[in-house]
Amino acid sequence: MKKGKLIGIGVGPGDTDLLTLKAVKTLKIVDIICAPKSANSKPSLALSIVKPILKNRNKKYKILEPLFPMIEDNDKLKKYWNDAAQLILDQLNQGLDVAFITLGDPSIYSTFSYIFRIINDKNYEVELIPGISSFTACAASGKMPLAEKNEIIVIVPKIDERLEQIMKYGDTFVIMKTSRNLELLEESINKDKRIKEILSVHNCSMNDEKIINGFSNEKNYLSTTIVKFKDKKKDY
Amino acid sequence: MKKGKLIGIGVGPGDTDLLTLKAVKTLKIVDIICAPKSANSKPSLALSIVKPILKNRNKKYKILEPLFPMIEDNDKLKKYWNDAAQLILDQLNQGLDVAFITLGDPSIYSTFSYIFRIINDKNYEVELIPGISSFTACAASGKMPLAEKNEIIVIVPKIDERLEQIMKYGDTFVIMKTSRNLELLEESINKDKRIKEILSVHNCSMNDEKIINGFSNEKNYLSTTIVKFKDKKKDY
Repeated sequence: MKKGKLIGIGVGPGDTDLLTLKAVKTLKIVDIICAPKSANSKPSLALSIVKPILKNRNKKYKILEPLFPMIEDNDKLKKYWNDAAQLILDQLNQGLDVAFITLGDPSIYSTFSYIFRIINDKNYEVELIPGISSFTACAASGKMPLAEKNEIIVIVPKIDERLEQIMKYGDTFVIMKTSRNLELLEESINKDKRIKEILSVHNCSMNDEKIINGFSNEKNYLSTTIVKFKDKKKDY
Repeated sequence: MKKGKLIGIGVGPGDTDLLTLKAVKTLKIVDIICAPKSANSKPSLALSIVKPILKNRNKKYKILEPLFPMIEDNDKLKKYWNDAAQLILDQLNQGLDVAFITLGDPSIYSTFSYIFRIINDKNYEVELIPGISSFTACAASGKMPLAEKNEIIVIVPKIDERLEQIMKYGDTFVIMKTSRNLELLEESINKDKRIKEILSVHNCSMNDEKIINGFSNEKNYLSTTIVKFKDKKKDY
């Protein structure tokens, strides 16, 4: 029997209207939707984004919700990834296609990467459908061009000692999940004497989106800060 | 009379199916479509991407195609931007909404930035609709996770002396329009002794898409190279 295909779908930052046509077309016909959740008590955010699309489906489908807890212990994490991969493999082996939905884009800091690696290594067919990344959505919400001309963009998922080093060479810095390490971020940014513009966005594109000029000390998992340095001579 | 609104729409890398629902909804009702072109003899690529959407419109619309030549002279460019902005302002002043369509995302290396600045400064209403950036689409086509965990992504639009400096601190490098300066790129990359994976994509998501493992010396405006360093200890 022909084996099923795994499709990693980026569902964008939050607004269902930021799904691509390709994602929508796939979500309307795929056999299985796999929506990872971080805790059994929490509904999957990715699943809530695609719900309005699934509502109008004719064909039956099944939802899998494997657990991907937000823990740091790699041995434990590996066990969760392997369990989720096995759940998916069971479906693929029955000839069923599985859409793994993930916030933002499947190639950028996504849980899909781990699942992709396990299943791709076993030579199953895998496809990726790109999604709107949180940082371009944040720039759109904040009406801030991220970069022009020869400006370099740096995307930093976790604030550590490398930030201060790399800051010398880039023009625009996107710092994800800023609430996790805000003090160190502010310290690094303030050390740099170039003129800068700072924008923070919480829950981008969602109903309760918040746009802040400057840093924000609100505790929120879905928060992004954009720092744009403007010391270079602008000719326009 | 209420003035019109300018909407910057990212139309993604090439495939019409990579438009967002939001972009499609807007393109179906907006009064004016503004599609910049780089030469009078060349059709606008952004316009060709949205053509299948416009075909099914009921409401009449007008297409504007201002010239944005690919030249380096800033004084001359400024004149083109101002002319295009004036063309758009004439429509906004008549109460008409204008969608400015742009490849990829409107906040990343987009001609929209210049128009945005001129019109935003005059206090007209402006909205941005994010689009799929070429580099996440390239990663999807090449089935290459761009970054995981605390890996830093660096996006370099033009290869210059800063690339070698910043290369020490990042993990994944996205180099846009690589055909413009391939030798310097190869030299910089080869100097770095870390283990790396290199992927080049031409005409991403289009019918004539080409995916190459390694560098590519094909002359092509729409080419992107992704270099991923893998020296860091991976725990999984």
